[in-house]
Amino acid sequence: MSQPDDADPEAAPTPAAYDDLLERYGRATYLGDANAVLSWDQEVMMPEGGTPARSKQRGAVSAVAHDVLVDDETAELLEELERADLPAPKAAAVREIRREHERNARVPTDLVEEISTATSEAHPVWQEAKETDDFDAFAPTLERLLDLKRRYAGHVAPDADPYATLFADYEPCLDLSTAEDVLEELREGLVPLIEAIGESGAEPYALDGTFPESDQLAVTREALETLGYDFERGRLDTAPHPFSTGTQFDARVTTRFDESEPLDSLASTIHEFGHANYTLGLPRGAYGSPLGEHRGLSVHESQSRLFENHVGRSEPFWALFVDRFNDHHGTDLTERQAYEAANRVYDDNLVRVEADELTYHLHIVLRFEIERDLVAGDLDVAEVPAVWNDRMEEYLGVRPEADAEGCLQDIHWSHGSFGYFPTYSLGSVLAAQLYAAAEADLDDLEGQIAAGEFDALREWLAENVHEHGRRYTTDELVEQATGEPLTAEYFLEYAEEKFGELYELDR
Amino acid sequence: MSQPDDADPEAAPTPAAYDDLLERYGRATYLGDANAVLSWDQEVMMPEGGTPARSKQRGAVSAVAHDVLVDDETAELLEELERADLPAPKAAAVREIRREHERNARVPTDLVEEISTATSEAHPVWQEAKETDDFDAFAPTLERLLDLKRRYAGHVAPDADPYATLFADYEPCLDLSTAEDVLEELREGLVPLIEAIGESGAEPYALDGTFPESDQLAVTREALETLGYDFERGRLDTAPHPFSTGTQFDARVTTRFDESEPLDSLASTIHEFGHANYTLGLPRGAYGSPLGEHRGLSVHESQSRLFENHVGRSEPFWALFVDRFNDHHGTDLTERQAYEAANRVYDDNLVRVEADELTYHLHIVLRFEIERDLVAGDLDVAEVPAVWNDRMEEYLGVRPEADAEGCLQDIHWSHGSFGYFPTYSLGSVLAAQLYAAAEADLDDLEGQIAAGEFDALREWLAENVHEHGRRYTTDELVEQATGEPLTAEYFLEYAEEKFGELYELDR
Repeated sequence: MSQPDDADPEAAPTPAAYDDLLERYGRATYLGDANAVLSWDQEVMMPEGGTPARSKQRGAVSAVAHDVLVDDETAELLEELERADLPAPKAAAVREIRREHERNARVPTDLVEEISTATSEAHPVWQEAKETDDFDAFAPTLERLLDLKRRYAGHVAPDADPYATLFADYEPCLDLSTAEDVLEELREGLVPLIEAIGESGAEPYALDGTFPESDQLAVTREALETLGYDFERGRLDTAPHPFSTGTQFDARVTTRFDESEPLDSLASTIHEFGHANYTLGLPRGAYGSPLGEHRGLSVHESQSRLFENHVGRSEPFWALFVDRFNDHHGTDLTERQAYEAANRVYDDNLVRVEADELTYHLHIVLRFEIERDLVAGDLDVAEVPAVWNDRMEEYLGVRPEADAEGCLQDIHWSHGSFGYFPTYSLGSVLAAQLYAAAEADLDDLEGQIAAGEFDALREWLAENVHEHGRRYTTDELVEQATGEPLTAEYFLEYAEEKFGELYELDR
Repeated sequence: MSQPDDADPEAAPTPAAYDDLLERYGRATYLGDANAVLSWDQEVMMPEGGTPARSKQRGAVSAVAHDVLVDDETAELLEELERADLPAPKAAAVREIRREHERNARVPTDLVEEISTATSEAHPVWQEAKETDDFDAFAPTLERLLDLKRRYAGHVAPDADPYATLFADYEPCLDLSTAEDVLEELREGLVPLIEAIGESGAEPYALDGTFPESDQLAVTREALETLGYDFERGRLDTAPHPFSTGTQFDARVTTRFDESEPLDSLASTIHEFGHANYTLGLPRGAYGSPLGEHRGLSVHESQSRLFENHVGRSEPFWALFVDRFNDHHGTDLTERQAYEAANRVYDDNLVRVEADELTYHLHIVLRFEIERDLVAGDLDVAEVPAVWNDRMEEYLGVRPEADAEGCLQDIHWSHGSFGYFPTYSLGSVLAAQLYAAAEADLDDLEGQIAAGEFDALREWLAENVHEHGRRYTTDELVEQATGEPLTAEYFLEYAEEKFGELYELDR
């Protein structure tokens, strides 16, 4: 990573405290990344019986990482460096470490350890509850996690809205009000569009049949290769809930297969590719420093959404990929059929991760409202299934018959991740904004995609997003990359145009 | 785990310091086990590019585990508890923690971290050197690890033989002189036996043909199921060098396949089963305490050897298993043919992990001599290939043509594990002694094996070995389980009888 400010001959020499601070922060980072490996293993490889030991292991690693970040020596180094005249990238690193130090120093180690143990123990409980469609079996766990995270938020910022505090763990550089505004804009723009689609009578092509897992695996692997995923720095595995995790040296992707929905595993894999591609694009030389870490979940999600939707659900992508899809599955789809099938709007779909680009955001609005009320204590855990089902009916006109496809569907709450969901919509919106900027900068991006050339797009993203790590705040990053602040306009414009054409809307 | 001493109403109440000490020790244990997961992942799952980050992660976890064990609070708690009147099991736990504390407190954290990073970085260097048969590429790494481990030994016990200090990391409760005596006894007993076998002219049945990996995988899985491996607390995967790792909640096995040697993968898997079976038999309630940990590598190896050789290479096992083997491989072996093939003595074999029960120990003697001289500084790294090859010729009458099947064959040195090899022979000897004791205690053990009934044997091992964790020293454990001190007599007797019959020796 270039740090031009360091080359300034007039600059004051960097105090030794900077290296000391970075060494300490590095240790905390490595421990955090070790914990991410334990977590990947737990979800992808670990036999069920391993849970009690794994909980202890993750709890211990979290606790020591926390201790390193919060101790007095770290605090003293931060104070010294904040008085120093540092070059801008180093000042940014100090700013980021300060934020994490504050968040952690205010939370007692015991509580950190308890949260880690509780979330580790919660995972199999949630999994079992989902499998047996038994919300009551998960309710006490959810209650415990809410209580722990409320206590956590109370320590971090006693006078703030606890939900805003939790949200900032995932998106530290945008106000919760920005999230609220974006969700509001999306709801206002999308509800009439989805209604119009429902009334259009248009019937885009739909896939039918059975698509064996082994063929889907071959398709998803080929998609990853096509997009340029480096298997020497990653893996593809299956997991109950697809995710991506890792470092710039080893960023892994998981997927899952439904034999009747081969486009779901493909879209999901391309989505996780976008995440892994961001992670792998972080500067390797800055591993262990905030300058080598991602900028927060909204930016992370922008990278996955850009590939999932703007690439993987585009006409040029299907011009490129339809033959490969047909070869593996023995189908005979045309480009247009595949494109239509990949972009059907399902206003009766209950499951977020299977949602289309439009209804997806209403799934997020629903979760956002429920978890905000849960954290505030305005909603009892026991009421969640009923409220969930009522709102699904209100927003999408469809009611889950089982909690397994209702409020038990997502892994997030079992991780204690309250405040995470809004970053999905923020990421979608940013994806559209970044894609528009990339299209303006690059020569015939659509033509490149149709030709299977992804280098220029990936380089543009690397230069404008990945390589900066946490050098800039989210606001600054968005402004630099796109020339304007974060806005939902690009997404809504894109949605109107794409789905207007697909559903023959005259708007 | 029962701790009858605790129930004694006359006993003094346990000081609060005991719980504090165990909590601290627990954290170190969980961190150590977290590191074992990182290591398993590195060898079984991690893409190659992940090495730099994994090295940092493992180094950081080792360092914090070390810090917890050595800090002043741990030292103070130990002193307080050593003055207290503790029930015997708790006194044993304190004794074990004291040993680890001493070993760790004397070694600077920086050196611990450096060793961890160096061993993590060494792994791919060794792997590449082995693949390309290029000892020179590994030599500087070996030199670095020797230097680090010499420095380590110098810190632990400045006046002791550094090799004895390193040996005690793997076998803390037996003197190096015991190892030397056992190796000497084995050499004296085995050299004439192997010679007699070579001269006997007898030709036990040998397998011929190609045995696909998928069939071997099915056989090894069936063997694990037959022996009673609990797949809900374990996994079977492949790795370049088979190993077993984990906790009493999740103990995993790895294997590898050679399409011309289906009995190798089977024996190796049964061997690793023995390790995992020990780990899974450790008391779960004592997880995080020395009472929930294995007694050292000699005892560990006794468990793997007992299953590998005394069960898996026995006549009753093949009476049970030959049909299953034949079914998977489409072969038509008789019990006797399978038994003979599983017990051929290969006096021209170069590779330790493919060695038979007899020549195996000469492979160990060779490594023991070389690494003892390396650590003492009496042998240069550059001389290792020549010395290795000369001694192979001397002991087994065969000379490696490539270092890949000579001094580069084992993973141990790339782990910095000098002093580990002797525990293999100690384990073999103890396996024979334990098997003889179990046979005396149990009703028709051979008949049970032939009938596929392994519960009684596994219970005997659990009661006499596994459940005690580190409650007793190795000496005490052996004496309690078998009624006498460790001796090579049972192994040599067993070897004379078994191979005398197989090779029609008149001795």
